[in-house]
Amino acid sequence: MDIATLRAQHPDHWTLACPIRTLTLDAVAAANSGHSGMPMGMADVATVLFQNHLKFDASAPNWPDRDRFILSAGHGSMLLYSLLHLTGYADMTLEQIKNFRQWGAITAGHPEYGHATGIETTTGPLGQGIANAVGFAMAEENLRARWGAKIQDHHTYVIAGDGCLMEGVSQEAIALAGKHELSRLIVLWDNNGITIDGKVSLSDVTDQMARFAASGWDVFACDGHDPVDIDRAIVAAKTSPRPAMIACATHIALGSSAQDTSKGHGALTAPDLIAQTREVYGWPHGPFVIPADIKARWEAIGARGVDARKDWERRLSNLSDTKRAEFTRIFKGEAPAKLAAVVRALKKQAVETMPKIATRAASERALEVINPIMQETMGGSADLTGSNNTKTGDLGVFMPESREGRYVYYGIREHGMASAMNGMALHGGVRPYSGTFMCFTDYARPAMRLSALMGVPVVYVMTHDSIGLGEDGPTHQPVEHLAISRATPNTLVMRPADLVETAEAWEVAFSQTKTPTVMALSRQNLPAVRKKHLNLNMVAKGAYVLEEAEGKRQVILMATGSEVEIAVKAREILQAEGIGCRVVSMPCWELFEEQDQAYRRKVLPPGPVRVAVEAGIRFGWDRWLFGEGGKREKSGFIGMHGFGASAPADRLYKEFGITAEDTAAKAKSLLGL
Amino acid sequence: MDIATLRAQHPDHWTLACPIRTLTLDAVAAANSGHSGMPMGMADVATVLFQNHLKFDASAPNWPDRDRFILSAGHGSMLLYSLLHLTGYADMTLEQIKNFRQWGAITAGHPEYGHATGIETTTGPLGQGIANAVGFAMAEENLRARWGAKIQDHHTYVIAGDGCLMEGVSQEAIALAGKHELSRLIVLWDNNGITIDGKVSLSDVTDQMARFAASGWDVFACDGHDPVDIDRAIVAAKTSPRPAMIACATHIALGSSAQDTSKGHGALTAPDLIAQTREVYGWPHGPFVIPADIKARWEAIGARGVDARKDWERRLSNLSDTKRAEFTRIFKGEAPAKLAAVVRALKKQAVETMPKIATRAASERALEVINPIMQETMGGSADLTGSNNTKTGDLGVFMPESREGRYVYYGIREHGMASAMNGMALHGGVRPYSGTFMCFTDYARPAMRLSALMGVPVVYVMTHDSIGLGEDGPTHQPVEHLAISRATPNTLVMRPADLVETAEAWEVAFSQTKTPTVMALSRQNLPAVRKKHLNLNMVAKGAYVLEEAEGKRQVILMATGSEVEIAVKAREILQAEGIGCRVVSMPCWELFEEQDQAYRRKVLPPGPVRVAVEAGIRFGWDRWLFGEGGKREKSGFIGMHGFGASAPADRLYKEFGITAEDTAAKAKSLLGL
Repeated sequence: MDIATLRAQHPDHWTLACPIRTLTLDAVAAANSGHSGMPMGMADVATVLFQNHLKFDASAPNWPDRDRFILSAGHGSMLLYSLLHLTGYADMTLEQIKNFRQWGAITAGHPEYGHATGIETTTGPLGQGIANAVGFAMAEENLRARWGAKIQDHHTYVIAGDGCLMEGVSQEAIALAGKHELSRLIVLWDNNGITIDGKVSLSDVTDQMARFAASGWDVFACDGHDPVDIDRAIVAAKTSPRPAMIACATHIALGSSAQDTSKGHGALTAPDLIAQTREVYGWPHGPFVIPADIKARWEAIGARGVDARKDWERRLSNLSDTKRAEFTRIFKGEAPAKLAAVVRALKKQAVETMPKIATRAASERALEVINPIMQETMGGSADLTGSNNTKTGDLGVFMPESREGRYVYYGIREHGMASAMNGMALHGGVRPYSGTFMCFTDYARPAMRLSALMGVPVVYVMTHDSIGLGEDGPTHQPVEHLAISRATPNTLVMRPADLVETAEAWEVAFSQTKTPTVMALSRQNLPAVRKKHLNLNMVAKGAYVLEEAEGKRQVILMATGSEVEIAVKAREILQAEGIGCRVVSMPCWELFEEQDQAYRRKVLPPGPVRVAVEAGIRFGWDRWLFGEGGKREKSGFIGMHGFGASAPADRLYKEFGITAEDTAAKAKSLLGL
Repeated sequence: MDIATLRAQHPDHWTLACPIRTLTLDAVAAANSGHSGMPMGMADVATVLFQNHLKFDASAPNWPDRDRFILSAGHGSMLLYSLLHLTGYADMTLEQIKNFRQWGAITAGHPEYGHATGIETTTGPLGQGIANAVGFAMAEENLRARWGAKIQDHHTYVIAGDGCLMEGVSQEAIALAGKHELSRLIVLWDNNGITIDGKVSLSDVTDQMARFAASGWDVFACDGHDPVDIDRAIVAAKTSPRPAMIACATHIALGSSAQDTSKGHGALTAPDLIAQTREVYGWPHGPFVIPADIKARWEAIGARGVDARKDWERRLSNLSDTKRAEFTRIFKGEAPAKLAAVVRALKKQAVETMPKIATRAASERALEVINPIMQETMGGSADLTGSNNTKTGDLGVFMPESREGRYVYYGIREHGMASAMNGMALHGGVRPYSGTFMCFTDYARPAMRLSALMGVPVVYVMTHDSIGLGEDGPTHQPVEHLAISRATPNTLVMRPADLVETAEAWEVAFSQTKTPTVMALSRQNLPAVRKKHLNLNMVAKGAYVLEEAEGKRQVILMATGSEVEIAVKAREILQAEGIGCRVVSMPCWELFEEQDQAYRRKVLPPGPVRVAVEAGIRFGWDRWLFGEGGKREKSGFIGMHGFGASAPADRLYKEFGITAEDTAAKAKSLLGL
């Protein structure tokens, strides 16, 4: 539908949609950067969605049963900011719109979760929003099954562009949604045929509707500028028993001289172009001006959900006090009071039995006691359930026929899994954890970074965390992945050494509300190194003295995870020769960094020779070898210097020189012995 | 087709296929680990492919015009090793098969490129092989267009499993292949319905044939145990004008008690099971025994291509000496002699004009002089051509209608792009480089790691390499990505400061034969810092003294890329106050690490205060702050401590305290001033 017809046939709609377009033009011009074309193209679709369908209440942006609206094409952030401002979200003032992309404004270049209410997730890295949305929809299905439709009963809407659909993660997400028949998930595809480099056809001939249909979706199409047609398609999508994709044929940068061109994708800032576009729109108002009557109509849309929200609150208040408290707790993402107690009990049991087990098995032991008292957990694995030990007996399986199940078979989709977990955590009411091999952190990286950037407390269970996995060889052996995870801001990287430390690590991970955790776990069996019960969670300190030196402290050995065993044995060798040696277990550098300097110095006092032992590369270790009073000439590293190899684990440790003997010898040579 | 029918109707075929299955059983049993089921399931398909179709000569494994065979489902490595042994590849002895997955053997758990001839690429991380294959096929199309079908004219065959097809990168690869109508690419899908967690249907309902068709493929199906049907499908696929996918219906772990189960996916080692399976197969021979007549038949298959290869060699020898030398050079991956000269000329010009340009623009300037003298380069971008500055005027565009073009519009597919580049480089004759934003290194990580592990010299042009990109905000601002890239073994991470350094960096990158390069380039303009012409390539040293201290050397400032400007200005501030200050530019840590200690000490002598300036996180910098005689108490870091923000770049540098003033102040405070 062209603009003239649209204005003539649907003047009310046009008037509503117009300020989305003009605020976009004005904000991008003021910032002299941004993306004008997408909001201009999708304004009609968004208007119909917000006006007729989206269940929301601008005055209660965190209402747990609201529909979720996700702008996967995050570069079109002005579409979202305009909608939030127009519908009356209190924090999205006109001032913020005017400060689009400026320091301190909540209107960042791409929507940043936590900056403003109504931003359900951080988008911009393409494909993430649509993959998050699958997690949102899974969380909704699970909560609806467990809490009833009176408490959870909503849709998840996504606007996605060609970029989102070209990214591989979109296929993982689409296939997951299709398998799980997520009928509450509706994707509005901004089918404008344009990418940054030019026409989509430069790089793609995919029939997107056929592709979605192949993975179990219902597909619809509409003229993305015809409000009646848009509405018809959304109505159809809502009644479909499967996830639905609507191909919305739109014109990028509608009405401007850059319409339907890649130029229109970017920042349209030329005053002439903007003036001409305003004329085409028939919009006589100045920059950032929205006539009061139009604003009032939008605010009425923003208040459309007030009654529904109040009804929902009544229904919530009808729950028992216990249930309501539980609902509140899980949506706050708080750990239950019982968590500390069950972990403590497991630790007691552990020091009694001293099991020699892999930390992945220790992790399963911990989850076995935690999952029953945290009904909000949802576990899973990217097709490595038996290897990641993420499935405990009580979880049940999340399936179309058993939505209440809490275990997800994600398939071989590490990236989609991680992104879905972000969506689940953002939805609230669910605490996701899932596993793959540590080496395949690589596949999940883009989503793992967003966990950290958004501050969502998902847990990545990364087993087979070193050459200790053995024969699968270097493609499966992480050597740089601890460094990569540690290099990522706002991420706890846990590498526990035995059952006690693993249990403590889970307690820490599940107590986070703003920080994701990477749980690096061994494939191979490890002896218990924590031999006395302590009520205190030592992993929460990040590092601590595991074994003290006897006699004069000449050496400090630092190690994590599977190499703590090696450090303990090396200490025995050194002590047998009369060399006093302390062993420091360092399961979480980030938490150790957070301790005060006095504690850090207590654990790592200046003076003794320091040797770090870790079956990964050295990168990052210098912080602890030379820091806190350490000295380069008195420190050494026992670990990997490149990629691994395929052979049984014991052989690899020997060949790469990561043994107690090598460690002791290194310490002695640093002592000049 | 069941085994009884197969044996009855196709006894010759059965006898050929059998030793693939039994060698797999024997090798996995000997190793007590591995994956038996896939080779047992796909032995019939592979036998037909090698017997009737694959153009190869086991005695000349590197023949440039051979068909490429890629085992994307790399866990089934014994399929490949069996075929290589049976057809007579000299290095794949029976001894190697017996040492499957053992230290020092060429028969690693997953096929490792470079370990044995006939392994075209490293596989195991799922989806990589099929995505590499797209690069192989693109290289072949390009070389055929440029050298003629007499010199390049072959197919690329892939065996892919369900895991490969679930990984998102497969969609990127499939769509790219569909767009480019890569008719020489044929994917044999091992459609066995089983993954590690159980049935495929646990996690997927995708109609794979419809999905491939939606992206422009021709699709075929066959009974993967009926040699006639397999052959029919391959013949049809070869004549198809588009890339072809053949769904081969197979039984995983065929003939064993674990057939059609997820148990069959893994290591079948029970002696009973193996004995029973041998019985079902009618294979009376002992472990690792292959009767001479069967081996002879296989070796005849391995020699099938001898005549074709000799014909090809004759055709190659008919080329002019110059052309033949060029062909040999590009397949060796060697830089032309002229490279140094054109880079030197550009450097001379640069110090004369001292342009203030972004290093991404400097990179384009370098490519403009290099691409004409290196006709083997193929550039590209993941839909950021104008931002990455990777397209020079002379390249032409690689399209179905212009196969000779050397620029690829990869679409929004960083992962597929990186994986395709690996394939191109492995194919030989082509030297790929391509771009995206540095932050989206994340998306390409799995393939970038494989570039490093395999040792293929692709170049990743990663622009917008810091908060200096400004308004796009933290989703687009790398802070940990330099650390991530540096943490990866066998990777050169270049961060040049101006046009001279950028030109030098390209010379180094294009001189590599075994190492990939990450070229981290600025969005923002930077002043020239190299003011005098030197013939010597200083970037090749990794780090060097850019500005010497005047007077007593009290401070050493270390910086890379866009922060060298800041260090130079900070030096001016310090010198103005009479504080002698050296500036060290460190464009490539890895190369600096390779210099002898005398050189490193010369550049970073002990004594002065050291301050590092880099608009990324500190992780890794301690190596240079404390190493080579540095001291913690006399060193400081000016950079990022977490994620960035959305605002103009200048504002961000100020707010995050990364300025010349901050740097000078830090140095002074370390001096106690």
